[in-house]
Amino acid sequence: MTDTAINDEGIQTMTFEPWRGFHDSALSPEWKKKISEMARKARAHILKMTTIAGSGHPGGSMSSLELYLVLYNMARLNPNAPNQTNRDRIIISHGHTSPGVYASLAAAGFFDITPCLHGFRQGGSPFEGHVEQSVPGVEWDTGNLGQGLSVGIGKAIYSRLSGLDFHTYVIMGDGEQQKGQIAEARRMAAKFQLTNLTAIIDYNRLQISGRIRDVMPQNMVDEWEADDWQVTEIDGHNLDNIYEALHRATNDTENLHMILARTTMGKGVVFMENKEKYHGSPVSQEMLPEALSQLGEDDRDIPTLLKLRAEGPPPMFERKPVPYPVVSPGEPITYGIDEKLDNRSAWGKALLSVADANMHRDDFVMAVFDCDLAGSVKTAEYAKKYPANFFQCGIAEHNTATCAGSFGAEQALSIWADFTIFNIAETYNQARLNDINHSNVKLFCTHAGVQVGEDGKTHQCIDYFGLLNSTFGWKVITPADPNQTDRIARYVLSTPGSFAVVMGRSKVPIITDEQGNPFFGNDYQYRYGRMDILRRGETLALVTAGNMSWVAVQAWNKLHEDGKNITLINVSDWSDLHPDDLQMLASYKHLVVLEDHNIKNGLGASLAMSLYEAGSRATLTRMGVTTYASSGKPDELFKLLGLDADSVTEKILQILG
Amino acid sequence: MTDTAINDEGIQTMTFEPWRGFHDSALSPEWKKKISEMARKARAHILKMTTIAGSGHPGGSMSSLELYLVLYNMARLNPNAPNQTNRDRIIISHGHTSPGVYASLAAAGFFDITPCLHGFRQGGSPFEGHVEQSVPGVEWDTGNLGQGLSVGIGKAIYSRLSGLDFHTYVIMGDGEQQKGQIAEARRMAAKFQLTNLTAIIDYNRLQISGRIRDVMPQNMVDEWEADDWQVTEIDGHNLDNIYEALHRATNDTENLHMILARTTMGKGVVFMENKEKYHGSPVSQEMLPEALSQLGEDDRDIPTLLKLRAEGPPPMFERKPVPYPVVSPGEPITYGIDEKLDNRSAWGKALLSVADANMHRDDFVMAVFDCDLAGSVKTAEYAKKYPANFFQCGIAEHNTATCAGSFGAEQALSIWADFTIFNIAETYNQARLNDINHSNVKLFCTHAGVQVGEDGKTHQCIDYFGLLNSTFGWKVITPADPNQTDRIARYVLSTPGSFAVVMGRSKVPIITDEQGNPFFGNDYQYRYGRMDILRRGETLALVTAGNMSWVAVQAWNKLHEDGKNITLINVSDWSDLHPDDLQMLASYKHLVVLEDHNIKNGLGASLAMSLYEAGSRATLTRMGVTTYASSGKPDELFKLLGLDADSVTEKILQILG
Repeated sequence: MTDTAINDEGIQTMTFEPWRGFHDSALSPEWKKKISEMARKARAHILKMTTIAGSGHPGGSMSSLELYLVLYNMARLNPNAPNQTNRDRIIISHGHTSPGVYASLAAAGFFDITPCLHGFRQGGSPFEGHVEQSVPGVEWDTGNLGQGLSVGIGKAIYSRLSGLDFHTYVIMGDGEQQKGQIAEARRMAAKFQLTNLTAIIDYNRLQISGRIRDVMPQNMVDEWEADDWQVTEIDGHNLDNIYEALHRATNDTENLHMILARTTMGKGVVFMENKEKYHGSPVSQEMLPEALSQLGEDDRDIPTLLKLRAEGPPPMFERKPVPYPVVSPGEPITYGIDEKLDNRSAWGKALLSVADANMHRDDFVMAVFDCDLAGSVKTAEYAKKYPANFFQCGIAEHNTATCAGSFGAEQALSIWADFTIFNIAETYNQARLNDINHSNVKLFCTHAGVQVGEDGKTHQCIDYFGLLNSTFGWKVITPADPNQTDRIARYVLSTPGSFAVVMGRSKVPIITDEQGNPFFGNDYQYRYGRMDILRRGETLALVTAGNMSWVAVQAWNKLHEDGKNITLINVSDWSDLHPDDLQMLASYKHLVVLEDHNIKNGLGASLAMSLYEAGSRATLTRMGVTTYASSGKPDELFKLLGLDADSVTEKILQILG
Repeated sequence: MTDTAINDEGIQTMTFEPWRGFHDSALSPEWKKKISEMARKARAHILKMTTIAGSGHPGGSMSSLELYLVLYNMARLNPNAPNQTNRDRIIISHGHTSPGVYASLAAAGFFDITPCLHGFRQGGSPFEGHVEQSVPGVEWDTGNLGQGLSVGIGKAIYSRLSGLDFHTYVIMGDGEQQKGQIAEARRMAAKFQLTNLTAIIDYNRLQISGRIRDVMPQNMVDEWEADDWQVTEIDGHNLDNIYEALHRATNDTENLHMILARTTMGKGVVFMENKEKYHGSPVSQEMLPEALSQLGEDDRDIPTLLKLRAEGPPPMFERKPVPYPVVSPGEPITYGIDEKLDNRSAWGKALLSVADANMHRDDFVMAVFDCDLAGSVKTAEYAKKYPANFFQCGIAEHNTATCAGSFGAEQALSIWADFTIFNIAETYNQARLNDINHSNVKLFCTHAGVQVGEDGKTHQCIDYFGLLNSTFGWKVITPADPNQTDRIARYVLSTPGSFAVVMGRSKVPIITDEQGNPFFGNDYQYRYGRMDILRRGETLALVTAGNMSWVAVQAWNKLHEDGKNITLINVSDWSDLHPDDLQMLASYKHLVVLEDHNIKNGLGASLAMSLYEAGSRATLTRMGVTTYASSGKPDELFKLLGLDADSVTEKILQILG
């Protein structure tokens, strides 16, 4: 256990109180008494906050409660410094049990319960309906089920690579065990022997629609054991049982443990027990006094709490963002005009160069995640050189996406390289959740667009921007050639934020300036958010990006030979169009956009919207993908789609009249 | 076995040749000899087509080959009428083994092999890199792994509900067993005792990155057995073994069977065997003669084939689309102005009404799929009345999405109702694949937008249009009130195509005309793709949709009281904006768009693009969701986001000056 790590802001991580960390083999009688009393009060708090809010999930909160209380009181946590870097991580996968989590955190000293009692689920309050990091002690915003174990894997990997050596506990619902992502996560944890991770299932045997065994029968124990986890069944309301199981799991460095905690939904209030109705509905105001009295509590404070609620939401907690790691971008590589390589190879070389420039530092933590495609996505050389920082996750993209997100929410460089169809289209929802969680994930996305060619329509990702543009944080970048790929990769790796660098599969020539030198060469300075003017001309500007940049250069050459002098503009950064660049575009009479993306919501669509609002009068012709393409060589397919250099030239000649 | 069903086009389904259907307990010596010889030739065909194309996946094609040949020759299929409705369905999950599939289909008489040998992976050819329905005998376009078993479940359910009583065989790769969706599918098949479905795994023990046990260790047998499947291990190149296992699986009506077929990647050519290199790479032209000679074949036809390839792609096969079922829309329900209900309740009533109007017909097949939310998404009443046509799939959205897609690709009405975040955002990639497969799926999506309220940001789907607008087929519709919901639900259920009807959670008043009668009442005729003018005014048009329609009416009322006479337009159909409506909008001086959607790519963005291209000069103000919102009552949240009636009124007054 490393208690002396110093994080980037120079804050020394502290030691914890002696009882923390499940070192003792049993719960002391004092603690048992203390937590029992906490549980009684916390149940009353759960009822009050949900009834006052008029919504929320009391049933599961009351079944998970003893698990939460033991964890938040006995794990290596400091309620006064909840972000200590070497704290244990407690991940709540079934985030709808937020009332139980908040009541337990308050009982363990993280904050005063009163604002939560009146501010639960109130607009502008930190106490949201599903657990959110706006509340101290909450590690991850959840709500969409089935992702918690993958989050835990990201933390467990960070614990190992950083040397902070903390333990991660993931508490899940039983209904969510029906999600396939959990099976992916179980296998990954087993493969990497992540014994610093413990899984706990609140097995109250009910989900919204009724008994689990009716909704979707599942042999939970057999499934976990098939994936090499040891299962311990306990009474999930018995504090001694819970503690002992956690003691065993925490201190066993040989085996993975899942604790199956048999519990009772609505535990503690007779009329709520084992009623699925109370999964997602609070006790009515009329029934509240009766429920509270069963817990030895009363409702005298309700009028005061209602008055406080009417006064508006409680204030937000201050919460410092996790610092982004210091990443040296290394030395740029410039490819000469005689070299022909694919952008993904340039990315692979940049990755290795950045790793080389940083890996020697003790405080530097990075991981590259792969889903059985390292050779194709060019991370294989890195994997060979830095095997401890490379994670082969298998064909299990949902787990990988969440795992990369969870890892990237720590002070660490988190990279996932894959085919674009897998790390954007297949895992959009995981990307969305990662964004909500303020994670920094670097997606390197190869084989994008129709340009992937022969693999056909199921593999041609033509929606990368349409999808990530549906979030608020993700930024999409499409490098034009290997030189720009090199610069962009270094920028992205050394800059906070979540980026998707989208590349094709095929080799492309080096793009030159009019003098024949590499355009993105030694003098080129990549500035995020700005367009590049590859050729200056008049009347008409051809705007292009990524896979189409080389096609556009060919079209420009043809037009040039024909005496037509147009402007050629490359847009690498689709997510942020600079107002000055938009004004520049608006100064042309005609604009033609050429993109390897669904024409409905790609670069052309985005430009059209921005240009309209900027009052542009330039005509706009959008050339992009208008149908699912087939299987074939990229040139064949571009021709079939009317996106090859000849078609572009012809269209421009038409426009110029 | 029903051999007399008559489909919608009056085509009588036929009986099959007597040996088909695995009735006999063993493969006859004649067939064994015949298939052995087919296998030898098919291996040569696999090599030729991939080497000529210069890409493709020979390794897995050669390991799955005997499985394919036995299935395509012995299952109840008619090569001359490959779409017979009562045919067995063979689903290829690891679609990259297309060379093996095509070679086997040709050997079984579905088509001549020659066009495939020269046209494989050629732009414009039917013989794509991953299996596609453009080739006769292929049931489902696959490529993204892990979906095949879910496809099989959709077919097995259709087999049962239609009474056609065919068997479905799903062949999968071993690497793809790492995908979580397969675990979801296994459990669903077991729950519904789909013994008319057989799973087969080509267990060649290699994936792209090497040995499966290194890439991602997995106890495959234990996992399947944990989910109540019987596992039979066989030699996957032994024709007797394959036949006998399929005989047993096909004829067992008590148990689910998975056949684990031990095979050899690259089987038949010594230098290819057990080499993962040949997973995704063809044999070089230099090595081809040697490889062919090991199979007792030669390369004499290669020059001719290359010449044919140079002449262009072979022609596409004719393939009739599956007819859409006849669905009576039933009798519309009009809700009076004193009724206040949520759109989802109106949807639930419309569903029941449409089911009542059709379920008595023998030729009518429908299913509603649910993921543990029937009560909230208002399918519970239907489920009670029609339990055989309701499928509770548990919290397993990926499997459900694919299953609904596969079922909807048959002559059947396929409905999946869920929270929008689950049946659009979580399962985008499945929706994309369903679209590629020309399926007709009806998504009814409740709890959309910030309007879902207290469940918070993880549950607020504000990207429904941004996502489905990334496909070419899906259409997004947002009804404004319960009356319009009723009309739209009936339209969608009775019309071919894939639609997402997106609704909020909260109760909304009935929208009236200026006389105070229901606007979408008895006289209203829903016309897909047209906008509704709720109020006629001048100078400025407020354009709104779905959850915001009622807010917009309130703003209109406030402005009206203030003496301002604006136009109020409701857009229900976001995916198709009619040119006449765009011209109508362009005639205003000012346009304000109000939407409960990410402002970056919602209705306003789409309108801006279309208006720009239509030459509009109207100013455009887009009001939508600009950040992940919090947890709270919808009104609180809209106010925080500046989207409540007061904010809209204020903004419009500013614009009007």
